[in-house]
Amino acid sequence: MNSTIETILAHRSIRQFTQQPIDSEQLDTIIRSGIAASSSSMLQVISIIRVTDAEKRKSLAHLAGDQSYVEKAAEFLVFCIDYQRHMTINDQVQPEFTELTLIGAVDAGIMAQNCLLAAESMGLGGVYIGGLRNNAQQVDELLQLPQHTAVLFGMCLGYPAQDPQVKPRLPAQVIVHENHYHSLDKEAIAQYDQTMLEYYAGRSTNQKQASWSEQTTGKLCEESRPHILPYLNSKGLAQR
Amino acid sequence: MNSTIETILAHRSIRQFTQQPIDSEQLDTIIRSGIAASSSSMLQVISIIRVTDAEKRKSLAHLAGDQSYVEKAAEFLVFCIDYQRHMTINDQVQPEFTELTLIGAVDAGIMAQNCLLAAESMGLGGVYIGGLRNNAQQVDELLQLPQHTAVLFGMCLGYPAQDPQVKPRLPAQVIVHENHYHSLDKEAIAQYDQTMLEYYAGRSTNQKQASWSEQTTGKLCEESRPHILPYLNSKGLAQR
Repeated sequence: MNSTIETILAHRSIRQFTQQPIDSEQLDTIIRSGIAASSSSMLQVISIIRVTDAEKRKSLAHLAGDQSYVEKAAEFLVFCIDYQRHMTINDQVQPEFTELTLIGAVDAGIMAQNCLLAAESMGLGGVYIGGLRNNAQQVDELLQLPQHTAVLFGMCLGYPAQDPQVKPRLPAQVIVHENHYHSLDKEAIAQYDQTMLEYYAGRSTNQKQASWSEQTTGKLCEESRPHILPYLNSKGLAQR
Repeated sequence: MNSTIETILAHRSIRQFTQQPIDSEQLDTIIRSGIAASSSSMLQVISIIRVTDAEKRKSLAHLAGDQSYVEKAAEFLVFCIDYQRHMTINDQVQPEFTELTLIGAVDAGIMAQNCLLAAESMGLGGVYIGGLRNNAQQVDELLQLPQHTAVLFGMCLGYPAQDPQVKPRLPAQVIVHENHYHSLDKEAIAQYDQTMLEYYAGRSTNQKQASWSEQTTGKLCEESRPHILPYLNSKGLAQR
């Protein structure tokens, strides 16, 4: 196994950071790594807002659902879908389609994962902050995003001040299908639920009593950020 | 610079492959790498369909816009949003929201990029196939995707039979903003357009005369897969 794969397989989200800053050369490498990622039709539809202002960080931590590490991490990057760039170059561009939002979301994931892995390969840690979408409109205003540009998620980066275990994932036999979709292997889910019960009960912080099935499907029975569709529509990015 | 960052920065999409297969141990590592990625709220909403059937490959190559490498690559993986898994566990799950489609698209990008980097770190190459969405409904039927599961993109993987240059990207000063959105640096775009003109004119295959601005904004003036919104709606995944 090579060191890239070791880095990938060792991933844990890091939510506690030391006060050590990320130096500018490291940050440049992290950003270059993100930019080197594949881009759908080379459209390059992502902007990154690096938030260095302490007051804005504090506001974002609150808007993300009181996630204090958004304020405390050495760096905080916000990944946005950005078709404003293309509109500025050519005002005949029509970015009003679901498809283009999908391109933006996939490409942001690809780019951000390059940034995170580059950081992790240097001994840094980080965590994705989807919670920015809890209050997408307010985050948008705080970052002064123009029309045709929308907030997707943030990423905290810094030197880890914790050493959490790698969290068990669904087994490959559940995730991977061959040639056509296979129905769910409920036996494998039951085993995974048991594994996660043990993981949650035994981990060093935030212990809880919950199986994966209960936890995720409980969450999915609730309404999930119903304001996102009107938000994307208001930015000209969801529906035709 | 460490080898993970070298792998990331050396990325080129590979569209010509030798006939050498990817052995099962390598493929397992690629899949494990994908599964190790961050997952929004640990929902784990992605399924991968590995297509080994030669006839299905041929059909997919055609449906993706006659991209022959979909047929010829050693492996072809299709990344799908999958809330059917959660519905099977708990039929009270309500996956009818734009937000959940966004989670799926971002998480698929994150997972797929882990797969691609793991492959690249082993000397393999690959390319994302967004073209599967050209005929999303037909791809969906071919792979027998159930309700609440939708095709996002494919990925060809194999041993490279070409050695293309790294394609220049927009400079960091255009992609990265500090604290708030900055208006477009048109000078930087003009320079990048010049760089891309030279790149396209000088590269070893598929030479063309086009600046980045012309090419991308021309594409964005056309309607972009307008069937995607009705497709996602038909799968219960777009609008409330």
